[in-house]
Amino acid sequence: MLDETQRQLVTNRLKSVEGHVRGISKMVEEESYCIDILHQIKAVQKALDQVAAITLKNHLHTCVTSAIRSKNTDDKERVVDEVMQLFKATSKL
Amino acid sequence: MLDETQRQLVTNRLKSVEGHVRGISKMVEEESYCIDILHQIKAVQKALDQVAAITLKNHLHTCVTSAIRSKNTDDKERVVDEVMQLFKATSKL
Amino acid sequence: MLDETQRQLVTNRLKSVEGHVRGISKMVEEESYCIDILHQIKAVQKALDQVAAITLKNHLHTCVTSAIRSKNTDDKERVVDEVMQLFKATSKL
Amino acid sequence: MLDETQRQLVTNRLKSVEGHVRGISKMVEEESYCIDILHQIKAVQKALDQVAAITLKNHLHTCVTSAIRSKNTDDKERVVDEVMQLFKATSKL
Repeated sequence: MLDETQRQLVTNRLKSVEGHVRGISKMVEEESYCIDILHQIKAVQKALDQVAAITLKNHLHTCVTSAIRSKNTDDKERVVDEVMQLFKATSKL
Repeated sequence: MLDETQRQLVTNRLKSVEGHVRGISKMVEEESYCIDILHQIKAVQKALDQVAAITLKNHLHTCVTSAIRSKNTDDKERVVDEVMQLFKATSKL
Repeated sequence: MLDETQRQLVTNRLKSVEGHVRGISKMVEEESYCIDILHQIKAVQKALDQVAAITLKNHLHTCVTSAIRSKNTDDKERVVDEVMQLFKATSKL
Repeated sequence: MLDETQRQLVTNRLKSVEGHVRGISKMVEEESYCIDILHQIKAVQKALDQVAAITLKNHLHTCVTSAIRSKNTDDKERVVDEVMQLFKATSKL
């Protein structure tokens, strides 16, 4: 779970991503050059990667840390598996 | 440039991406589990990859085709370089 | 198809990638720190992306150009589809 | 650090990657179709992602777990930062 400050930061970034996507829709309607549209799509994906990085770092410092410190082996297995699933989704596996 | 049908398709998809991003903001505000938020971010990035694929395919069939068929060598160089820039942005180069 | 100069360039790069992978095997046997191994794996993947970029650029300038200039619509469809398949494999689609 | 079994597994996979890269060199020398070469490069990158996944999972279960369980806050910060660096290298950040 994100704390108050991080939640605000992530929410602001997502709000900005939403505006960026709306901007791309406008470019499409105004018949912009495809290559320019494609670069804006990449920029949005990069902004989302940054939101993901904030979220993941927070997750490692909170839930993953608690689960690893708890005596519960299943909890530890679960959080490691979840991080691995994410890593695999990010790679091409 | 996208034709009328493709423009509609792409605009609809981008509208749906916008809604999806708004949904993630809501998840953040409702203090959802970080891993669930991260998977939704991946899903949006995948949806954007699909929009990019439609746009690129169209670009190859229109602008790239015209430039390659024209007698202008500079035009051909330019469209190939643009596609290469995009490929490099998509890889990790 | 790559011309003589490019074939030499690509072959040299692949030879260097092979040596790099052998170096990672050695790191594993010498019980190096996992994070160092992981960064070397990323470096090899980046080197392969560069080989792919040389190969793709060449492909666009030769086969794709010929196919698009030929009168054969099927040929054009095929080369565009092949480039799209590659783009999809490179993205997360 | 990888244990004996995992070290063997990773070493075997890297050996196979080496052979695969050598095979691509041969394809280049035999003037294979560029698209076929490009797909083989993708396959090697995917195999390397699998080696990376084994290594990372092991790293989370050993070094990251020890560092998080230790009383040393710097150690915990360091391992989280290292995982984040890797995630950023894997994304497009």
